Amino acid sequence: MQKKSWPLDDVRHWLEPGPVVLISSRWQGEDNIMTLGWHTILAFSPSLVGCMISAGNASFEAIRQSGECVINLPEAHMVDVVAGIGNCSGAECDKFARFGLTKEKSSRVTPPAIAECHASFECRLYDDAQVENYNLFILEVVAAYVKPKPVWPQTLHYVGGGQFRTDGEVIDKQQLFTKVS
Amino acid sequence: MQKKSWPLDDVRHWLEPGPVVLISSRWQGEDNIMTLGWHTILAFSPSLVGCMISAGNASFEAIRQSGECVINLPEAHMVDVVAGIGNCSGAECDKFARFGLTKEKSSRVTPPAIAECHASFECRLYDDAQVENYNLFILEVVAAYVKPKPVWPQTLHYVGGGQFRTDGEVIDKQQLFTKVS
Repeated sequence: MQKKSWPLDDVRHWLEPGPVVLISSRWQGEDNIMTLGWHTILAFSPSLVGCMISAGNASFEAIRQSGECVINLPEAHMVDVVAGIGNCSGAECDKFARFGLTKEKSSRVTPPAIAECHASFECRLYDDAQVENYNLFILEVVAAYVKPKPVWPQTLHYVGGGQFRTDGEVIDKQQLFTKVS
Repeated sequence: MQKKSWPLDDVRHWLEPGPVVLISSRWQGEDNIMTLGWHTILAFSPSLVGCMISAGNASFEAIRQSGECVINLPEAHMVDVVAGIGNCSGAECDKFARFGLTKEKSSRVTPPAIAECHASFECRLYDDAQVENYNLFILEVVAAYVKPKPVWPQTLHYVGGGQFRTDGEVIDKQQLFTKVS
């Protein structure tokens, strides 16, 4: 299914619940993907996301040098791909080829998105002040695309030790919110 | 059930999946609680967590001034309390009293933990360099306590619009990990 544009100030809908994501990057003609669980929304507008990208990853320099990446949201049925990507280095293999993933042209950044993922958030490096100290990249989401169906895909949440948890049912508590945000 | 000590370098087990947490603080003799969904693990050791605490919260100044807080992990059955705490201000009421929560003495920081929560992570403000720009508090977990049962409680993950998702089943992919971490 084709992804459709999603409001930049509502990226939190997808990332605040804490799913494992796949970060795609491009540097010096090479595309790479890494698995990431250490991220947080930082602001609605501009749409900021903080990602702790360990300096041990090949993606670290690619994103720092290019100043761009795409945050892709995989569905739970992609768990073998997600675990596989997290357990090999882009310095040694082409992860798109190895895991049979399709490159999807991004609209506002150079790195490709991953077609098989439910959503893609195109990012530019907004502030690198904490990259040196904490490997913390403050990224601005400059374009967001989401598949219209399913309305909510099952996502993956990493707990360490090679184990993931999926997400479960919805609990609607709108009536308890004075101001729904 | 009584909480037991948990390894500081494995706080990620509880926070990396992205649950909504309750932050308790104490400043000038007043205890407060806020609901928070914007956090990420930043390091295993020292055990660092980044929390984006909006300056609009009464807790913001309490944590900045005291340099301490406790991150409490609520279970899904506490959803009404979690939503309620997020929708009133500690400047106007005593949230412990209003929501019937029990103060539990912390071991290494002044603010109390919340007895009803599954886990408590006592934190000291480690680095405030990004508080001014992004309301981002880099906290060090200096003590961690977790109830031994259930081994995994159902947690809450906020998606905006007054809706939460719980977590679902476990997927074990240890066999795909070259180095389990």
